[in-house]
Amino acid sequence: MPELVGNLLVAQSGGPTAVINASLAGVIQEAGRHEFIEEIFGGLNGILGVLNEELIDLNDEKAKNIEGLKYTPAAALGTCRYKIDFSKKPEQAARDMDRLFEVFQAHNIRYFFYIGGNDSQDTANKIHHEAIKRGYELKVIGVPKTIDNDLPHTDHCPGFGSVVKYNAATVMEIALDVGAMATDDGACCLVEVMGRAAGWIAAGTIVAKRQPMDAPHLILVPEIPVNEEAFLAKVKETIDTLKYCVVVVGEGVKNEKGEEIAADKSQVDSFGHAVLSGAAENLGKLITKRLGLKTRTVKLGYAQRAAGHYASGVDIQEAAACGAAAVRAAAEGQSGFMVKIVRSSDSPYRWTTGLHPLDEIANVEHVIPRDWLSADGFTPNEKFIDYVKPLVEGEVRVPSEGGLPKYVTLDKNMVEKKLPVRS
Amino acid sequence: MPELVGNLLVAQSGGPTAVINASLAGVIQEAGRHEFIEEIFGGLNGILGVLNEELIDLNDEKAKNIEGLKYTPAAALGTCRYKIDFSKKPEQAARDMDRLFEVFQAHNIRYFFYIGGNDSQDTANKIHHEAIKRGYELKVIGVPKTIDNDLPHTDHCPGFGSVVKYNAATVMEIALDVGAMATDDGACCLVEVMGRAAGWIAAGTIVAKRQPMDAPHLILVPEIPVNEEAFLAKVKETIDTLKYCVVVVGEGVKNEKGEEIAADKSQVDSFGHAVLSGAAENLGKLITKRLGLKTRTVKLGYAQRAAGHYASGVDIQEAAACGAAAVRAAAEGQSGFMVKIVRSSDSPYRWTTGLHPLDEIANVEHVIPRDWLSADGFTPNEKFIDYVKPLVEGEVRVPSEGGLPKYVTLDKNMVEKKLPVRS
Repeated sequence: MPELVGNLLVAQSGGPTAVINASLAGVIQEAGRHEFIEEIFGGLNGILGVLNEELIDLNDEKAKNIEGLKYTPAAALGTCRYKIDFSKKPEQAARDMDRLFEVFQAHNIRYFFYIGGNDSQDTANKIHHEAIKRGYELKVIGVPKTIDNDLPHTDHCPGFGSVVKYNAATVMEIALDVGAMATDDGACCLVEVMGRAAGWIAAGTIVAKRQPMDAPHLILVPEIPVNEEAFLAKVKETIDTLKYCVVVVGEGVKNEKGEEIAADKSQVDSFGHAVLSGAAENLGKLITKRLGLKTRTVKLGYAQRAAGHYASGVDIQEAAACGAAAVRAAAEGQSGFMVKIVRSSDSPYRWTTGLHPLDEIANVEHVIPRDWLSADGFTPNEKFIDYVKPLVEGEVRVPSEGGLPKYVTLDKNMVEKKLPVRS
Repeated sequence: MPELVGNLLVAQSGGPTAVINASLAGVIQEAGRHEFIEEIFGGLNGILGVLNEELIDLNDEKAKNIEGLKYTPAAALGTCRYKIDFSKKPEQAARDMDRLFEVFQAHNIRYFFYIGGNDSQDTANKIHHEAIKRGYELKVIGVPKTIDNDLPHTDHCPGFGSVVKYNAATVMEIALDVGAMATDDGACCLVEVMGRAAGWIAAGTIVAKRQPMDAPHLILVPEIPVNEEAFLAKVKETIDTLKYCVVVVGEGVKNEKGEEIAADKSQVDSFGHAVLSGAAENLGKLITKRLGLKTRTVKLGYAQRAAGHYASGVDIQEAAACGAAAVRAAAEGQSGFMVKIVRSSDSPYRWTTGLHPLDEIANVEHVIPRDWLSADGFTPNEKFIDYVKPLVEGEVRVPSEGGLPKYVTLDKNMVEKKLPVRS
């Protein structure tokens, strides 16, 4: 097969993670190894920047800064939640597609990599099919990213291991704190973590438990509706035994009627998902009311997915490898795939990258198998632990300045525009 | 002066910090150097454990674990919020004092060190005066501890630097995250931090700002009542310029009527202080309502004071030095003092320890001087920055196991009881 000569475009999408920039670094560094990939462009703020022809020249960036992306959290190119939505906004979507291919053509983009979660893989898939339809030679590969770990077919997602590592360390530290204050009143702390409808992040904090009585004492995942009485009984039992209790609460936990305990329906993001907040707060109030216990809540929010200072070494390595694998696949002529992580062994942990057709990925949600959780649903079991343990291994060394992390910022030299402003 | 031969008792009190165990290590390690200090006992759960004659033998602990206390957060001996309250409960207080001195006598305690904040220094002072009154030879020295930094006379408190370091790094990381998502809608994140009525912790996050447009963009401290209109105008101005805004909110911020924005009067701790929660949440709702902006909140809660994995090296060193200085002072025959940190230079940072009479410390609150904040009250100025900068310097290396911190746990061998159970 003749090599496809042209330029590369990479963009980031959706919620940032601690390692989405490591995937970007993987793309850029691997691209540098292929002569027929000429220019390396980045789209600012995901597909939105591509539509606006806001491209930056990644070849202009210092090699040291590209390497530094591996420990820099958030999304160095910026992200968006913009969706090319053929079902809800068919005319806008058609115009967007025309515009995208104008931009691709104007800049001779022949390799397109989109780093993101479910919605972003869906966008990548649409672009892949559109290219075929238009007879425009373009290699499209999706690079997985999501702290929520809800992408199917990949063993896990880059971004997940780091959020679990940070949250588990935080739970461990909070438990030392609450345990130290555990005198006769009893002390209960609820830690709310992200993950939306999937409990992977909440369940992941199980790695903080080294001894049977260690925190977390209960983990509430959205996959299992919260039975109020069972929940309160378990909190009471823990307090009676230890005088303190640490509960990890997935933001998307539901009651037995299937309603989100925290849903705030007044705020909806641009994909139409309800903004979640307050599950821990609401459950804390329930405990105070029913058990007469003081409760405290911690809501880690964005802090957990941006915690570059405590990212997982394994996660960084895998994220970079996924970026590099995407470029290799495209360079070999593949298109319409997402890179996935394939695990061959838990201990010692062994993995490699693979490819999965984008057609089978978009908008499928991957939740925790029921038999990876205890019968009462409050504790992930050995199957889950074997799965998650290797993902938090390895430390990161972030350079510091004045005692604080020194993350890199790209220069972001803009590529000269060739098209009229987007209509 | 003849050396006072006898045993040492140390206890920890109040809310734990990342470095209160470093002070404990300082006490134990220094005590080992003085021959006339015979046994080294720890009181479990502060003064409450002393009343219950729950003492542990710290000489039995492994030297390596004592050293490991320097990077282990929370309170290894346990703490309490129990107060010997002569004004509100005079009879109970009198009984408590009798009991304390029975315990001291039974175990020949001649050196007593209480590591804690305002209330704990007050307790130490009462014990000091009571010893004189009773003619019981006892050397009492307070060791300062509080993340809130609200103790007077000491330049700052051990515990403060670490919480500032962790919070500032977190603000920096959250800002990268929110900034990466800053497309046209505008994104605003409010980060609620501790500190009660003092704004030191909130203001401390200013060290995250390396460039003028860096986060935090606004810092709300309890010392300055929040003027709603000025606050909203500043948020809007920031969003108009940057498309995102990061606001740090001290949990104890007040409105112009002097009411706490977050006070939940239904929960009160055992010192009678209202439990604070929800300032950021309430201000976020205000922004959404008035400016039509999406907001997100982060409530770091206990995570911030327990974050041993990102403690300040300077803070650890100072906390240990305060513990050691307390023992040296007592060994030299001093009593009725609190160790303080005395700064002689900001840059290069130079400090030493000193002593301050406990009589002048108890229950005085130390807040940010008005002229350390900008005219609008939203930004700490150079005076504050010069003060806080050195306190976040220095990294800690926490050993890890399975990718997570490996903190030490004491064996806690109990000292044989000699008294009947406390009535």
